Amino acid sequence: MREFNEFSITDAVIDRMKEATNPRVRQVSEALVRHLHDFIREIEPTEDEWQWGIDFLTKTGQICDDVRQEYILLSDTLGVSMLVDAINNRVTQGETQSTVIGPFYVKNPQEFPNGANIAGKMLGTPLYVQGRVLSADGTPLANALVDIWHSDEAGFYDVQQMQELGGFAGRGRLRTDAEGRFSCWTVEPIEYSIPHDGPVGQMLIEQKRHPWRPAHVHFMVHAEGHRRLATHVFVRGNKYLDSDAVFGVKDSLIAEFPKHPAGKAPDCSMRSEPYATLEFDFRLAKL
Amino acid sequence: MREFNEFSITDAVIDRMKEATNPRVRQVSEALVRHLHDFIREIEPTEDEWQWGIDFLTKTGQICDDVRQEYILLSDTLGVSMLVDAINNRVTQGETQSTVIGPFYVKNPQEFPNGANIAGKMLGTPLYVQGRVLSADGTPLANALVDIWHSDEAGFYDVQQMQELGGFAGRGRLRTDAEGRFSCWTVEPIEYSIPHDGPVGQMLIEQKRHPWRPAHVHFMVHAEGHRRLATHVFVRGNKYLDSDAVFGVKDSLIAEFPKHPAGKAPDCSMRSEPYATLEFDFRLAKL
Repeated sequence: MREFNEFSITDAVIDRMKEATNPRVRQVSEALVRHLHDFIREIEPTEDEWQWGIDFLTKTGQICDDVRQEYILLSDTLGVSMLVDAINNRVTQGETQSTVIGPFYVKNPQEFPNGANIAGKMLGTPLYVQGRVLSADGTPLANALVDIWHSDEAGFYDVQQMQELGGFAGRGRLRTDAEGRFSCWTVEPIEYSIPHDGPVGQMLIEQKRHPWRPAHVHFMVHAEGHRRLATHVFVRGNKYLDSDAVFGVKDSLIAEFPKHPAGKAPDCSMRSEPYATLEFDFRLAKL
Repeated sequence: MREFNEFSITDAVIDRMKEATNPRVRQVSEALVRHLHDFIREIEPTEDEWQWGIDFLTKTGQICDDVRQEYILLSDTLGVSMLVDAINNRVTQGETQSTVIGPFYVKNPQEFPNGANIAGKMLGTPLYVQGRVLSADGTPLANALVDIWHSDEAGFYDVQQMQELGGFAGRGRLRTDAEGRFSCWTVEPIEYSIPHDGPVGQMLIEQKRHPWRPAHVHFMVHAEGHRRLATHVFVRGNKYLDSDAVFGVKDSLIAEFPKHPAGKAPDCSMRSEPYATLEFDFRLAKL
């Protein structure tokens, strides 16, 4: 067949992919063409709108660099990341719920001993974090890796201000002890806007949406024989809990971050200034 | 609502866009989210596959530069460009059919007098092109602008070899005379593979598709009071007419490119080597 109309072209394109050796490639390619063409037929873009779309996708790629990932932001703000998360983490064993990883994760962060301060030069109210890593049935998991990362008191991550901070800060890896416990000092996170000086920010403006995320600490937990858990713990009471720009909030992930006056902290250290605490246990699904 | 599952998240994202002032932004955003989420729910990507998709989209943007537009290639090879073309050019008045513009068009090319040679330093068998620009009812259109561009005998456009050619070549703008006529000398095009050393080339390999386009000359015609026409004229008999990598072929756009021995050409010039000719009239829809 040589000549296609606006309906027959979909099958023509799919037919061209039928020789793909890998069945998953064939399945994904076919579904992509079918849904993409349905979208185009529904909105009937003008040629100028098509060109706008080409430019938008191009700019979204070109603003990416080592520390900025605009396509993850786009996936996040269109609800795709949470949808993929939901599909891949159907809760079945009573494990802790997952949420988006976001664009600020750094693989293999520096490992710290439990109780260490991972804040580096990051500014904010001191926060003492402690918790346990457990299997879904409650068994403590020793030697689990707990990666933590979060914003500073101004709402910025270390990777957004590496020069000012002189390196990573508010980011680290802990290893659970024989009872599955981990702990560290760092600083309190605050609500922040996702980077919105690029194409995704323009999209949010056009869609009359705010770019804010409620205050949270990211955790990624690896334990042998268990499914990796990527999640946040959100600060209860934050004003953006009901309108997270990336749709990441789940009720079970909201926790108290109580404030304390200067004095003796849970790790028996003496604090000369007020601080906050977070205690949270993570339950991982068995593989 | 704060917590969404893999079905309710679609309405939650759409609901977040409902304040958009521009109704077209709202319509396109809603349709995008609906079709994109349907695609994701159908294929159920793993997190690695989602990451692969993020990387693919990022690389597709990052390989683009002033003369390379990988997102147009992606749109072309997924049949989206021809679909948008079909939607925007529903033939109604007997006008010449349109096809994809492709990634090699340059706005406002150099204007040449009729009969001039636009080949520059481009190599290939000489080709004499002549034709008329007409309104759909057959009325000749004077002062119409006819932009021409095409590959050389090795299958490359000028913009892919600007340094070697010392500038544009095989590309120019003609203006029709009082009888709607235009003409020029250039060189014969040949079949060529679309640029396939990038993400789109990888996609074609995975889908077991070849990257070839049948030999053709591009035309874009502007005439006052008429719809712009962007089209190709394809070389009859080319082996890729039935498997164009971008689905652009239409029967009515295939023409003879007859070969002639050295001697007196249609413009009465004496040719010392064999040459080819193309004669093609373009009919434009009235606005």
